[in-house]
Amino acid sequence: MGSVTQARPEPPVLSMVEQALGIDFGPALGFHPENLRKPVLRIHIQLSRCACRATIIIFRVTDSATELGIAEEWLTTFCEATYTVGSSTPITHHHHHLQRQVTALSIQQALNCLFLTVHYAEKQGSSSGTMPAFEIAQTIRTFGGKLLKLSHKSAELGGLETKLNLYLPPQAEKGKVPVLFYLSGLTCTGDNCAEKGNFINPASKEGLALVFPDTSPRGAGAPNEEDSWDFGTGAGFYIDATSDAYAKHYRMYSYVTKELPELLFKEFGKELDESKVGITGHSMGGHGALTLFLRNPGKYKSVSAFSPIVNPINCQWGQKAFSGYFGAENKSKWSEHDATELISSLGDKAASLPEILIDQGLADNFYPDQLLTKNFEKAAKEAGVKANVRYQDGYDHSYFFISTFAEEHVKHHAKYLKA
Amino acid sequence: MGSVTQARPEPPVLSMVEQALGIDFGPALGFHPENLRKPVLRIHIQLSRCACRATIIIFRVTDSATELGIAEEWLTTFCEATYTVGSSTPITHHHHHLQRQVTALSIQQALNCLFLTVHYAEKQGSSSGTMPAFEIAQTIRTFGGKLLKLSHKSAELGGLETKLNLYLPPQAEKGKVPVLFYLSGLTCTGDNCAEKGNFINPASKEGLALVFPDTSPRGAGAPNEEDSWDFGTGAGFYIDATSDAYAKHYRMYSYVTKELPELLFKEFGKELDESKVGITGHSMGGHGALTLFLRNPGKYKSVSAFSPIVNPINCQWGQKAFSGYFGAENKSKWSEHDATELISSLGDKAASLPEILIDQGLADNFYPDQLLTKNFEKAAKEAGVKANVRYQDGYDHSYFFISTFAEEHVKHHAKYLKA
Repeated sequence: MGSVTQARPEPPVLSMVEQALGIDFGPALGFHPENLRKPVLRIHIQLSRCACRATIIIFRVTDSATELGIAEEWLTTFCEATYTVGSSTPITHHHHHLQRQVTALSIQQALNCLFLTVHYAEKQGSSSGTMPAFEIAQTIRTFGGKLLKLSHKSAELGGLETKLNLYLPPQAEKGKVPVLFYLSGLTCTGDNCAEKGNFINPASKEGLALVFPDTSPRGAGAPNEEDSWDFGTGAGFYIDATSDAYAKHYRMYSYVTKELPELLFKEFGKELDESKVGITGHSMGGHGALTLFLRNPGKYKSVSAFSPIVNPINCQWGQKAFSGYFGAENKSKWSEHDATELISSLGDKAASLPEILIDQGLADNFYPDQLLTKNFEKAAKEAGVKANVRYQDGYDHSYFFISTFAEEHVKHHAKYLKA
Repeated sequence: MGSVTQARPEPPVLSMVEQALGIDFGPALGFHPENLRKPVLRIHIQLSRCACRATIIIFRVTDSATELGIAEEWLTTFCEATYTVGSSTPITHHHHHLQRQVTALSIQQALNCLFLTVHYAEKQGSSSGTMPAFEIAQTIRTFGGKLLKLSHKSAELGGLETKLNLYLPPQAEKGKVPVLFYLSGLTCTGDNCAEKGNFINPASKEGLALVFPDTSPRGAGAPNEEDSWDFGTGAGFYIDATSDAYAKHYRMYSYVTKELPELLFKEFGKELDESKVGITGHSMGGHGALTLFLRNPGKYKSVSAFSPIVNPINCQWGQKAFSGYFGAENKSKWSEHDATELISSLGDKAASLPEILIDQGLADNFYPDQLLTKNFEKAAKEAGVKANVRYQDGYDHSYFFISTFAEEHVKHHAKYLKA
């Protein structure tokens, strides 16, 4: 167990912080009565040299009872900046890490300022401390809950760093909530739908957490991965590649179905209910949602999709991806990741599945050639699976379409996940 | 009055279209029985040489009753591409122009394909035809209504082209609806809030049209306009500049209060009710909303703002902008565009104003130094103006903040605009 030391940081760090904040600390470190009399912003620096990570604490002076909350938000806001002490010790600032690693918090009031003193576990050489799996770059309050901008190194993705967004609704402050995974389409990251998809508003009302993973590994260095928008980077297709060139990094199937949920349920065990998980997605991510659902009976309690690629073995996008990731000859592997093929081979399991909700815009440029929605609808009917496929007149393939129907999808998932 | 001619376009045009669509028309133009038997996409080209503008009509084969709708959406989708006939006649394709200029539509069904024949007014040399003010690059269906991506040349902005978004809710199909202007903040265009602000969903329910203008002229070539993110391009501050270098183009005040509404109410006279207009905005756009409202009593029936710059003469952003656009010495001009100054000089008009709704996040980095919300709140109280200033704990300056409270703002405006 370590505790905060109030060692002075090297002058270069201090001047960087001063410059970034436009505040002059003067010759000494940390707590300055002169600064405290300024009406708005106060800064207090504590550097713990017994841990790898140093802490910059910024807090505001207020006359309300919410100082700590505000102080936390300032911490969070400040997390975007990274400073370096000497040559090897990064100072990043993560409120979430504080929360997780903190062993004691003491708060004192003096003058018109709060002092926040933090004691936290050592990262290394300590039997009691465990490293959090995720870095949290930002915590953003929205619709009463929190959007966490996470990153971590993924073993499934060959050790590469990957980013995601996690939305915790207000209900997660009081106990475990169900979780809805949203898989994004070609070229997207986990940011697009978090910003434009209109999922957070209804998830906040229904009390669902949302997970928005990335769409592929980034920076694998595999052949041709940056050459086109429908293969490689941004186009992982939620499979585990078997071709030599891609097998090490392109494992979004195992990443999304195993590694990511394991890490999330461990790290956010107080907030997320691992027995209540649903999955949805758009386009390539709709393909991902349907295939992950159909390949893992019981794992996902609910499923839906927007404009999904339902029959990739019969469209150009899927053929290009599967040829690259599995090899052109490996057709049996192709079928294992084709929702229309999978639903046809369900057998007895078909009857017990929850209803599959799909929305498809009729003014979607990709509908006729790439999405092949009718093939899945027909196969589901023949297999005896309840599929509610809704063709939406005039809607295209964009987030303006997704946002329109997101609330209905969230309610569809809530019906199963909160049952 | 002109009518459609079915003249053949020059070969280069045809081959460009073929290339863009991946379709081979063969040696002849337009309607090919062979192409019609293909199951998905049909193209029919009609070039009217009596008008400046040529028309490319693309439609899909379906077996439902919605062919025309789909055909229109394909038209719209295709609008993003521009082809050139010869050297001087642009072929752009704008469904909206068709709607506005069309004098007759005839539809025939043959084989499994719809034929759409369009007769439209000549653009030049015709007493009956008038040019539409706006080009419509895209019409996107969302939340039951239409988002139009518009552009036009603005006289107020020195003849430069400017873009905006117009959302027409479903109610606008049946009659005039009230209009809410949303003014964006520094660095934004009219796109950000249309995509991320969560205004469209509640506007669709309440039956309000939304207008999202740009934040400055683009490409004026004025000194230093590209040098920083808080002055010049993306930072027009909703004023009419008087400094020589900016006076020709930087006239966002007159653009937003006069030119744009005049054009909109003329062009969309069937959809928009010019007697029911409200105004809102974020940050610099919140400054815009408050100052335009206070400077034009009666023009706006409702007003609100997110994180507004309420006292620009006393913050660095405002001082930099006003020094540049008005000159450092022209302090009386500065005060004419400062919401806190304006509200203090209302006199008898104060009592009759509608309530001003303001939301301000307490974890907003810009709140303490740039926004100065308390100054306005105090001045409003002293002036006897009803101002509901809500400080939102933990919220920052981003669209995650705006989207959270957008619905309440839309309802605030609807209360006045639908009274």
